[in-house]
Amino acid sequence: MHSTKETSAATPVSSTKENRSLPLRDQLRATRAATRRVTAPLSAEDCQPQSMPDASPVKWHLAHTTWFFETFVLEPSEADHEAVHPDYRVLFNSYYQTVGAQHPRPQRGLLTRPSLDEVWDYRTTVEQRVDEMLTSESLDAAALDIVELGIHHEQQHQELLLTDVKHLFSQSCLQSRYADIPPTAEQPIGAARWTPFEGGVQRVGCENEGFSFDNEMPRHATILEPYKLANRLVTNGEYLEFINDNGYNDPSLWLSDGWATIQELGWQAPLYWTNCDGAWQVFTLSGTHPLRCDEPVTHLSFYEADAFARWAGARLPTESEWELAAGGVLKEGNFVESGLFHPKPCHATGAPNAVTQLFGDVWEWTQSPYTPYPGYKATSGALGEYNGKFMANQIVLRGGSCVTPRSHIRATYRNFFPPDARWQFSGLRLANSA
Amino acid sequence: MHSTKETSAATPVSSTKENRSLPLRDQLRATRAATRRVTAPLSAEDCQPQSMPDASPVKWHLAHTTWFFETFVLEPSEADHEAVHPDYRVLFNSYYQTVGAQHPRPQRGLLTRPSLDEVWDYRTTVEQRVDEMLTSESLDAAALDIVELGIHHEQQHQELLLTDVKHLFSQSCLQSRYADIPPTAEQPIGAARWTPFEGGVQRVGCENEGFSFDNEMPRHATILEPYKLANRLVTNGEYLEFINDNGYNDPSLWLSDGWATIQELGWQAPLYWTNCDGAWQVFTLSGTHPLRCDEPVTHLSFYEADAFARWAGARLPTESEWELAAGGVLKEGNFVESGLFHPKPCHATGAPNAVTQLFGDVWEWTQSPYTPYPGYKATSGALGEYNGKFMANQIVLRGGSCVTPRSHIRATYRNFFPPDARWQFSGLRLANSA
Amino acid sequence: MHSTKETSAATPVSSTKENRSLPLRDQLRATRAATRRVTAPLSAEDCQPQSMPDASPVKWHLAHTTWFFETFVLEPSEADHEAVHPDYRVLFNSYYQTVGAQHPRPQRGLLTRPSLDEVWDYRTTVEQRVDEMLTSESLDAAALDIVELGIHHEQQHQELLLTDVKHLFSQSCLQSRYADIPPTAEQPIGAARWTPFEGGVQRVGCENEGFSFDNEMPRHATILEPYKLANRLVTNGEYLEFINDNGYNDPSLWLSDGWATIQELGWQAPLYWTNCDGAWQVFTLSGTHPLRCDEPVTHLSFYEADAFARWAGARLPTESEWELAAGGVLKEGNFVESGLFHPKPCHATGAPNAVTQLFGDVWEWTQSPYTPYPGYKATSGALGEYNGKFMANQIVLRGGSCVTPRSHIRATYRNFFPPDARWQFSGLRLANSA
Amino acid sequence: MHSTKETSAATPVSSTKENRSLPLRDQLRATRAATRRVTAPLSAEDCQPQSMPDASPVKWHLAHTTWFFETFVLEPSEADHEAVHPDYRVLFNSYYQTVGAQHPRPQRGLLTRPSLDEVWDYRTTVEQRVDEMLTSESLDAAALDIVELGIHHEQQHQELLLTDVKHLFSQSCLQSRYADIPPTAEQPIGAARWTPFEGGVQRVGCENEGFSFDNEMPRHATILEPYKLANRLVTNGEYLEFINDNGYNDPSLWLSDGWATIQELGWQAPLYWTNCDGAWQVFTLSGTHPLRCDEPVTHLSFYEADAFARWAGARLPTESEWELAAGGVLKEGNFVESGLFHPKPCHATGAPNAVTQLFGDVWEWTQSPYTPYPGYKATSGALGEYNGKFMANQIVLRGGSCVTPRSHIRATYRNFFPPDARWQFSGLRLANSA
Repeated sequence: MHSTKETSAATPVSSTKENRSLPLRDQLRATRAATRRVTAPLSAEDCQPQSMPDASPVKWHLAHTTWFFETFVLEPSEADHEAVHPDYRVLFNSYYQTVGAQHPRPQRGLLTRPSLDEVWDYRTTVEQRVDEMLTSESLDAAALDIVELGIHHEQQHQELLLTDVKHLFSQSCLQSRYADIPPTAEQPIGAARWTPFEGGVQRVGCENEGFSFDNEMPRHATILEPYKLANRLVTNGEYLEFINDNGYNDPSLWLSDGWATIQELGWQAPLYWTNCDGAWQVFTLSGTHPLRCDEPVTHLSFYEADAFARWAGARLPTESEWELAAGGVLKEGNFVESGLFHPKPCHATGAPNAVTQLFGDVWEWTQSPYTPYPGYKATSGALGEYNGKFMANQIVLRGGSCVTPRSHIRATYRNFFPPDARWQFSGLRLANSA
Repeated sequence: MHSTKETSAATPVSSTKENRSLPLRDQLRATRAATRRVTAPLSAEDCQPQSMPDASPVKWHLAHTTWFFETFVLEPSEADHEAVHPDYRVLFNSYYQTVGAQHPRPQRGLLTRPSLDEVWDYRTTVEQRVDEMLTSESLDAAALDIVELGIHHEQQHQELLLTDVKHLFSQSCLQSRYADIPPTAEQPIGAARWTPFEGGVQRVGCENEGFSFDNEMPRHATILEPYKLANRLVTNGEYLEFINDNGYNDPSLWLSDGWATIQELGWQAPLYWTNCDGAWQVFTLSGTHPLRCDEPVTHLSFYEADAFARWAGARLPTESEWELAAGGVLKEGNFVESGLFHPKPCHATGAPNAVTQLFGDVWEWTQSPYTPYPGYKATSGALGEYNGKFMANQIVLRGGSCVTPRSHIRATYRNFFPPDARWQFSGLRLANSA
Repeated sequence: MHSTKETSAATPVSSTKENRSLPLRDQLRATRAATRRVTAPLSAEDCQPQSMPDASPVKWHLAHTTWFFETFVLEPSEADHEAVHPDYRVLFNSYYQTVGAQHPRPQRGLLTRPSLDEVWDYRTTVEQRVDEMLTSESLDAAALDIVELGIHHEQQHQELLLTDVKHLFSQSCLQSRYADIPPTAEQPIGAARWTPFEGGVQRVGCENEGFSFDNEMPRHATILEPYKLANRLVTNGEYLEFINDNGYNDPSLWLSDGWATIQELGWQAPLYWTNCDGAWQVFTLSGTHPLRCDEPVTHLSFYEADAFARWAGARLPTESEWELAAGGVLKEGNFVESGLFHPKPCHATGAPNAVTQLFGDVWEWTQSPYTPYPGYKATSGALGEYNGKFMANQIVLRGGSCVTPRSHIRATYRNFFPPDARWQFSGLRLANSA
Repeated sequence: MHSTKETSAATPVSSTKENRSLPLRDQLRATRAATRRVTAPLSAEDCQPQSMPDASPVKWHLAHTTWFFETFVLEPSEADHEAVHPDYRVLFNSYYQTVGAQHPRPQRGLLTRPSLDEVWDYRTTVEQRVDEMLTSESLDAAALDIVELGIHHEQQHQELLLTDVKHLFSQSCLQSRYADIPPTAEQPIGAARWTPFEGGVQRVGCENEGFSFDNEMPRHATILEPYKLANRLVTNGEYLEFINDNGYNDPSLWLSDGWATIQELGWQAPLYWTNCDGAWQVFTLSGTHPLRCDEPVTHLSFYEADAFARWAGARLPTESEWELAAGGVLKEGNFVESGLFHPKPCHATGAPNAVTQLFGDVWEWTQSPYTPYPGYKATSGALGEYNGKFMANQIVLRGGSCVTPRSHIRATYRNFFPPDARWQFSGLRLANSA
């Protein structure tokens, strides 16, 4: 079994701007408030279980993101720092082996103590101390970098906790709901159109401006051949055609490992789809709804996205192809702030050749394995120690989803999951050579 | 993998006594009150997780024992009975396949809804309706039998939930405690002595008087050769000698399956023992304490009990040998009512030949596989459907433990667990041929 | 996973008869000749693979039974004994841990060297040396006991190698055949009849006369209630009724562990049955034949035998019930010497109340777990070290099968296998209380 | 678990040269003769077992490479072709799902029939028929392409069968040897030196000249930054320093999946290394020898190669970096024709900056996941059906090994294995950015 990242907690870009402290404080406050909002519908019991080894309890997410600030900001910055709770150093360490031992990952759901209330107290304590240091502008540039990193780290966990809750709620026949968005009626949707892009030597990756994770750097040249991208995401209706055309039973459409996976696990549809007497239904964070054909298909593994693309006579884009298309586009889309917690049909596609839905809705599987950019260097210290350690057996996804905070995503952002992961909001857009 | 019983919910003996209704009502009230007492120290979060497939969440125990009364008492006895919560019929069915489908056993810890409060409401609702029927003496004899069975069933779950909580709390380094009994000092304990028993044709099993499970019947003749039993349980100190004599590394002491089990799982001591720099410590429901050599050893598998007995030049008793010894003995001992939640040293052994500690402290592994008594017949109906279905791959234990309710145990009582089970309070007493 | 015995190599009864040496030599010669006959149809390649961990390669059986004579007869009896091949001491040790290390059991099929020819040379060498010692009457009584044990041990492996070859050949679509017995036509078979037996105190187990394994001793008293046995084995036709009556899909018929086993492994019929377009076919050592309804059903697990009996309104016999019925019966039946290698229909059942087919055809599952007889004592030394180590999680079978050597079986003989084993010729006879 | 390729049987380049038939016939004869040479030391029993699911029996390799010629050359080219043995179509199909069903891969070692002699007869029959068609120049260009592909396919299996035999022989304590090359004395070896290479836009991949697999095409532009390569392979001595520096116990050196793998499997050294009382020994195809520090290290997983490189302050080369270095180098090295079956120390490294050992000795792990080249298109038909199906979860290796046929390798050749594979002759060369 692959191990799963907790989120790529990578080294931040050090900023040279002065007066970062107060703006960061406001960002921190906003982010922590967002965490409170996103967990508001959940009871202490909802926050307790871990529904599979890849997921974590909500309570653990809440404690871990605070552990991060305590361990990486308070501990090095406070004179005579004493651990708020010495046990938490182990309990809420995700995978930082130089920080020390870790509570076994698959048993996070067994930690009934501390209680949720105690974790909220822990959050308040640490939050206030960081807030005070930011207010008093007493943190140096390196510490400010880590505060900024901690904010983005917490945003990643806001997304993860929603996908983990969705998985948890799907395990019970009681139909627990996180939200209560009523289903709306399906509408006809036009065929996707191809948008062409030129090839040639291009530059991808992130410059040293604004925040980014280190896996987005260094910015570097790459060569592309001319290509085209579909102007919108693949829909449930299109995916249903693949299913009805026997797509899950035709080995010629599948990568060898993908075929073995669907045989072993008996997959015949995306995660959360169920067929009741011939009618497809979909489990969402607002309960089970009839399948809407115009919605973007989601909860696909890489293997399914790849097989669908082959069936459609197309292919998945490379991450460079995606990034170049997204570079000049406004970051608009259906993010967590919409309160839908579900991808949204794209009926207005704008200009004939415009590429839409690049941001939000669903993470888009690319065909690119997650590898270091040329010249990538892991930085020193605990945070840098494991920057690249997930660069094997994972595939890059781009663009964010309907549960990603809007301010978290950008065109150069590289998300990554193993090819058989399905519990994230992951879908696809078709590509082809020009 | 062995499946594990939920507790042997067997067919009750039908009583011919009149006026059972009001006494049963009082028993029911007392039993439900005992359940409230035993769960009082636990938070909603403590009641949520399932620490291994063989265990269940406390919340699930609470709901299941109520489901039992609703399904087997209210449903057949109430005119126009409507389910209190239709979903619960599936969620809290343990293994009654003719009652219908069951929520997957290993995923009981994922049921965050209903909440613990809702389960308490469910308990109150069902309890009141049964109480009213008992008060109005409106249940027939068959229904009264099932009420009686439900009371004993609930007592079994009182014990199970404590052993399940112990296992759960042992999974965290935070050292959650269920109780707060301070450790006391070890005292010298004399060598065990043999008590002899005559053989010959003897009768074992339960007559039709008072409550018993159907696996205790019919009472029947058996032949025994003369034998002897140790006058007390094996202690930690004696077991430590076995460990120090390399007992876990000498294959000649072990059953073949036992040897394979300890190799595979790496057992080198009983469950909940840890060795810190040469000093043995034991995890209890009151936290971790230094090992007391005078306490009865507990949390042994059958394989370990059997290997210890062989090392000691003795053997385990058969269940008949145990039952005949216990037949004439007062049912005194360290039960759940003592509030210790841990076995207690036996320093006063009474008359020279008296056999002590037969009841309470720890369940005693016998050498007898759990098989039907001659002439055993499963009764008809849902409750009878599965009476004997656990009669394979299990070993009989006798006598009750420190977390068994005193009124629950008797000399003919047959408990049973797979030979590799260790999370119950299970220990041993030596036997030998005379 | 259960470990599997290699055959119960138990301590022999020491005989007081003089002049045992030459008769034993003749027995040894006959047994070794029988091994040559039984392996004659097999190529070196047929003798190489191990088709599952519970089975062994034929080559390994041939070497191990010779290792037994070298290790337990030659080594203690020859002055200055030198190992014929020092490596073989490890390679062909089955499970005698005090003899020393063992080649890993699941990898016996990877031993391409020694070659089959070299193993035959090894057999000849050891055989001649034992033969010479018997001819010169130079072995003491203890050594003669072990020679006798070695003969019975080799007979057990003659049976095992045939069942292992059957399993191996069943793995290929090429339809390898061990023998070439043409299928014969099915004939009508009458309903089974019940034969009644009295209960009371009876004696079972083996006296100290003739050879027996130590698990058959001591002879001891037991109490039985009156019972009856079917006068013949259950047939394929009767078992087919069980299948057609949905027997494999009705949980109320199954032990809990049995139900879990058939769910996990997808069993819907006995091993080696296949359904081709509605017609049942059976794989035999003579290839695949249409199912004959009059043949005894075989290749059942204990779970299937038990479920069938419950469906039929009956039960399996205890081993004592079987033994008392077999005690006064001539040991006639379909053994390996018939050359059929398959159970045979029973059309002539003799006297109205006679019980037939007790010996040969198929091993009969009893309801008795394999436990020590009262007073059973393991003897000292390497051979005695593990006598009882298989007495957990196994069920007793009685009567021998169509691949058992006739001289190997007797009424007191206790065979044993885990309840899920199916690759032996195992079937059943119904029993019931009178 | 990943599935493993049988060898990348890809679509051949169609040649425009006339008169290919007779030269191909000679190549075929030479290749088939090489197969006979490479299997000459093996008995029928050696050719029977399958030591792990990733390996195949030698007999199966021999039959499968013939099945390839029968299925893809004879079947489409012979009028009224009849299968030589209809069963073989299933038995010896590796993974061509459109050709039809396949014998289960993990059970190839259970096919005792056909015998090795029958497989050699099968080889002769098919070989002669192909030979006749080549002699009579009756095959069209497409069929000639497939003959050429079949020749390269057979060479791949020559290598695989040797690595599979090595794994098989390592499983027995009997120390079977394939060859008998005596160990020679270790000699001092100088430190490796860096050879610099320029970056820029470069072209990699294969042109349409000579034979290549389709995964080497199309030839395309790529961008490289300046880099340097070690002038020789990493040695056992250097790897020993990594071990002695606690390399296997320092998580900071390992990819996350690599760390999980070595924890789970307990790896503390390369495959086939054993430590006897402090002295390292290595199992080779000529038996077990003391470790030679000057030999190239081999039988490493990608994870180990990657961790070693990180420990050494370097990295693995990309496949493009390797290919550009190899492009201008003579294809000299230690191939299967040397008869050593083991990598050879490199003491003469030629010109100061020359890169040596690029070909032969050991396959060199790159850092490049195995992905399609830009514009890669799978061709039509059964052979093309699965060209790219292994392009997930595999890493590219370059350069061939000591058991690769010399004529089989070239600078553009892309071998690929999962990152945890160790039974191939796989080692590494260090790289770094300039």
